[in-house]
Amino acid sequence: MESDYGVTRELSDLQKKRALYQPELPPCLEGTTVRVEFGDGTTAADPAGAHVISQAFPRTYGQPLAHFLRATSKVPDAHIITEHPPIRVGIVFSGRQSPGGHNVIWGLHNAIKVHNPNSTLLGFVGGTEGLFAQKTLEITDGVLSSYKNQGGYDLLGRTKDQIRTTEQVNEAVAACQALKLDGLVIIGGVTSNTDAAQLAETFAESKCSTKVVGVPVTLNGDLKNQFVEANVGFDTICKVNSQLISNVCTDALSAEKYYYFIRLMGRKASHVALECTLQSHPNLVILGEEVTSSKLTLFDITKQLCDAVQARADQGKYHGVVLIPEGLVESIPELYALLQEIHGLHGRGISPNSISDHLSPWASALFDFLPPFIRKQLLLHPESDDSAQLSQIETEKLLAHLVEAEMNKRMEEGTYKGKKFNAICHFFGYQARGTLPSKFDCDYAWVLGHICYHILAAGLNGYMATVTNLKSPVNKWKCGAAPISAMMTVKRWSRGPGASPIGKPAVHPSTIDLKGKAYELLRSNASSFLMDDLYRNPGPLQFDGPGANAKTFTLSVEDQDYMGRIKLLQVYLDKVKNIVKPGCSQEVLKAALSAMASVTDVLSVISSSSLNSAGPL
Amino acid sequence: MESDYGVTRELSDLQKKRALYQPELPPCLEGTTVRVEFGDGTTAADPAGAHVISQAFPRTYGQPLAHFLRATSKVPDAHIITEHPPIRVGIVFSGRQSPGGHNVIWGLHNAIKVHNPNSTLLGFVGGTEGLFAQKTLEITDGVLSSYKNQGGYDLLGRTKDQIRTTEQVNEAVAACQALKLDGLVIIGGVTSNTDAAQLAETFAESKCSTKVVGVPVTLNGDLKNQFVEANVGFDTICKVNSQLISNVCTDALSAEKYYYFIRLMGRKASHVALECTLQSHPNLVILGEEVTSSKLTLFDITKQLCDAVQARADQGKYHGVVLIPEGLVESIPELYALLQEIHGLHGRGISPNSISDHLSPWASALFDFLPPFIRKQLLLHPESDDSAQLSQIETEKLLAHLVEAEMNKRMEEGTYKGKKFNAICHFFGYQARGTLPSKFDCDYAWVLGHICYHILAAGLNGYMATVTNLKSPVNKWKCGAAPISAMMTVKRWSRGPGASPIGKPAVHPSTIDLKGKAYELLRSNASSFLMDDLYRNPGPLQFDGPGANAKTFTLSVEDQDYMGRIKLLQVYLDKVKNIVKPGCSQEVLKAALSAMASVTDVLSVISSSSLNSAGPL
Repeated sequence: MESDYGVTRELSDLQKKRALYQPELPPCLEGTTVRVEFGDGTTAADPAGAHVISQAFPRTYGQPLAHFLRATSKVPDAHIITEHPPIRVGIVFSGRQSPGGHNVIWGLHNAIKVHNPNSTLLGFVGGTEGLFAQKTLEITDGVLSSYKNQGGYDLLGRTKDQIRTTEQVNEAVAACQALKLDGLVIIGGVTSNTDAAQLAETFAESKCSTKVVGVPVTLNGDLKNQFVEANVGFDTICKVNSQLISNVCTDALSAEKYYYFIRLMGRKASHVALECTLQSHPNLVILGEEVTSSKLTLFDITKQLCDAVQARADQGKYHGVVLIPEGLVESIPELYALLQEIHGLHGRGISPNSISDHLSPWASALFDFLPPFIRKQLLLHPESDDSAQLSQIETEKLLAHLVEAEMNKRMEEGTYKGKKFNAICHFFGYQARGTLPSKFDCDYAWVLGHICYHILAAGLNGYMATVTNLKSPVNKWKCGAAPISAMMTVKRWSRGPGASPIGKPAVHPSTIDLKGKAYELLRSNASSFLMDDLYRNPGPLQFDGPGANAKTFTLSVEDQDYMGRIKLLQVYLDKVKNIVKPGCSQEVLKAALSAMASVTDVLSVISSSSLNSAGPL
Repeated sequence: MESDYGVTRELSDLQKKRALYQPELPPCLEGTTVRVEFGDGTTAADPAGAHVISQAFPRTYGQPLAHFLRATSKVPDAHIITEHPPIRVGIVFSGRQSPGGHNVIWGLHNAIKVHNPNSTLLGFVGGTEGLFAQKTLEITDGVLSSYKNQGGYDLLGRTKDQIRTTEQVNEAVAACQALKLDGLVIIGGVTSNTDAAQLAETFAESKCSTKVVGVPVTLNGDLKNQFVEANVGFDTICKVNSQLISNVCTDALSAEKYYYFIRLMGRKASHVALECTLQSHPNLVILGEEVTSSKLTLFDITKQLCDAVQARADQGKYHGVVLIPEGLVESIPELYALLQEIHGLHGRGISPNSISDHLSPWASALFDFLPPFIRKQLLLHPESDDSAQLSQIETEKLLAHLVEAEMNKRMEEGTYKGKKFNAICHFFGYQARGTLPSKFDCDYAWVLGHICYHILAAGLNGYMATVTNLKSPVNKWKCGAAPISAMMTVKRWSRGPGASPIGKPAVHPSTIDLKGKAYELLRSNASSFLMDDLYRNPGPLQFDGPGANAKTFTLSVEDQDYMGRIKLLQVYLDKVKNIVKPGCSQEVLKAALSAMASVTDVLSVISSSSLNSAGPL
């Protein structure tokens, strides 16, 4: 029902108050002059993939970073854009709804109109399907009024999450040309931004004048890299989930008879689960990245859980809360292998009912071992990105089932003498996605929307809007843009220098950095979380008072600002140049050469050895 | 781990702020003088049951209502209690945790200490099991500090929900005597308050000097009657559930591909589902009371749902949100009959695995028709109050399953030409119970705690603390107490005057009044809720700003204040007495007699015919 999109609706008192909230603009985006400073040309993080990426994106790879500066800043070679002819921009939601998405549209609309009231913003109705079908809704202040700072994607809706096949790409090109768009802004996560980069390359190749801009909006929080510190929606989702997890923790402690197994939406990576653990202190979390890194099997995980249950029972505790990221199922090696076989058989057109007959003996044995409900879920068709339908696979129930069986066995054998193990399972995902966005996500999305305009005004194509220094207040935020292709990696069959790349370059989901500070914080508290019930309740999301301005632990503890450090490096290099100008003394030149030779040697070694650890950044 | 109860814990910023919140006291409870006015002796609402109740509660039935008055009020025959010797009171959580429960303890502690700092409040640790085992924790300001205005029951915990068997009652008597308690306060819902009344009668009979007081604390909102307008926890639970339901509604509208079937915790009655519907405007709610009243079968409900799905598909809508109270399964006649057979077989000691072999042919046919997961859940042991384990029976999945099958059938037959029906199921319960309580529940519980002291100071036994005029601000609240036995009813096999009572008198859960204003509000909006997606998002529970002081629709639209009206009647009767004093004219006396004869005739008729509708009040 496209006709329902963008309609004005009745808002609750709180929604009305939120609709009146006005996010702040960082100083660098104030005024009507766009000042952009270009950095050096970019490369990909993984040198081995760089060549493949540059071949796939000959026109958009290697473009420089862009920094948007305040009007008064004294940067000699900044481009200053004071002319703002009217432009036509299209915007589309691609991929799963994430709280704050509406504010990207609002921010872009605001920026467009501030710079030229005759510019036009068209929203594609019904996601990428609307793009292909050229169904648009003109974004106006009236249309936006009841969607500002509100959750969901219901201003425009969304459907399929793809602009990938030749037909889809051609339809997108046709739409942009027919609608005479100067820019197309794609709001989404890793997959949608990969599509955006591809579309940008296609546009450049086909001399289509539309520029493509991506915006990092995904509740999964897995679009993180050198340039992107956080994603719109992650803050809110973690707060709402932590509220519910904390409530369950309090519940567990009040009744003391259940173990709650809670699976969290968040796709392959475990960012949501990690952040929620740091916020609400449940007893245990099983991170997919830990399982992958330690190659834990289903049996190992079950044993780990049972040992935890038993250790707690020894202290008279028969309750607890365990978090499970939805992506865990793909991190467990034997389940992943089974899923791969099943997906292969899907691909060969085998009907789901007879897939089990075609499995290898090994996979078949595992399949038969699993309880019927999980078998059915594993047989579901894979998603558009070839991953399993993670939201539909009840890993929490599988683990609860296996733990119960094992605890019963231990009880029979007399090795466990406590009370019977009782589990209650939950999946938290859909109940959080549509929520009112937190102040942080409102601000962040609104600023990103503004940056999209600046990117287009600077004539850039294939870029993603970025904000760094996010853990500081808005007036310290640094705004910029980075080529999406610089965020790409290429999968390899095996690790090491000799491995050959497979598949197309893509923005892959980043995984939790097991050497990072957030994970370190978890590990240093893990044993007291497990045994001491240090449950913490951040409470329901507030918009005023304590907690309203709290940022995620993940963001707060990490030392990010990669783009700031890239700029700092430039400053150092410039200083060397200035000191060692032609005419300087022999000693100075000699010292500089010796020092720089040693620096370049060290960097070359580090850089090539980084091949061996294509992990998270 | 009793040693963990009442420990000081780390609070989040929001929890800390809430811990500092100070609820207000209505004027009638201010100061250190207790003024109590007694009304007439009470009766039960259902005259047919009154005799049975009076026989079961010879010492505590028929006691008068009590009203607590402000120190300055001019009521000639109010008892004024100015002496407050130190007292010892025990308090126990009985039954499921409900947000606000901690504040009853805080309020009682505050009132006790204000009236005599030497009084003692003992909390029983681990619920009624702690009572039986005489495990106590002395409640102090220090103990309370990190539990004020906080959710859960983790200050004291709770276990079994019963004080019913002779052994349990004897242990309770022994505990109260050993601990020299002047009062025992039981915090709970219908079952726990029935137990409280029974215990009060036993204490009176055995000349035990401990007085028993009940407090209406249950998230189900089903302890409603002439005297009790609302229950502690209901407001909060409905707000948290409405937040989540609204998020799901926004999600449904954003992606437009799923029907969400959401089951809500709340026991047999559908109060939570009704209130949440009024708050968040989902497309459909199936109230157990409607199903009972219209005798709808599983087939009827499935058809109703399918017709709704089809009507929406005709408008191009393939998404929606359907609420299902957890008690629905017991409202569907054939499922209820099946459950009764199963419970009967449980009672005869048949093992769950072979119960299906013992079912009547009719029940067996239904059982076989149901999908396996639901069969397993129906076979679970009944609860302590003989009802099914409602939280474990996934009625939402059963209905989604049946609707999917029927829609597929209609599709094959060509009577439905829309897209495939897709459902996602949720159960919202445990994730709300432990939440921070709303301001209303904080205030209400705290005031009820104070009233408990006033009841004990007045020497009353078998009473429940009550507050009326709750929809007004706290300074207009009226405080009182009513004998629990006056809230009881007796179940009958069939309806009508000749029906004989069965079972013991009990405080039964009140059902939704299908003639009430809240239900009328739902019905008048039902068709637009169904078709027009008028989703409303009250947002996360706020403690400041818009919505922080909102009360439930159920409370706001109903015209309650029964106790106020009982007092008003007394005023009218007194006026008649005053006008028709001995010595008045013949005409006045004649008119009075004629008018009163007619009034009494009418009331007698209405009163006896009320036998035929033992529904809600």
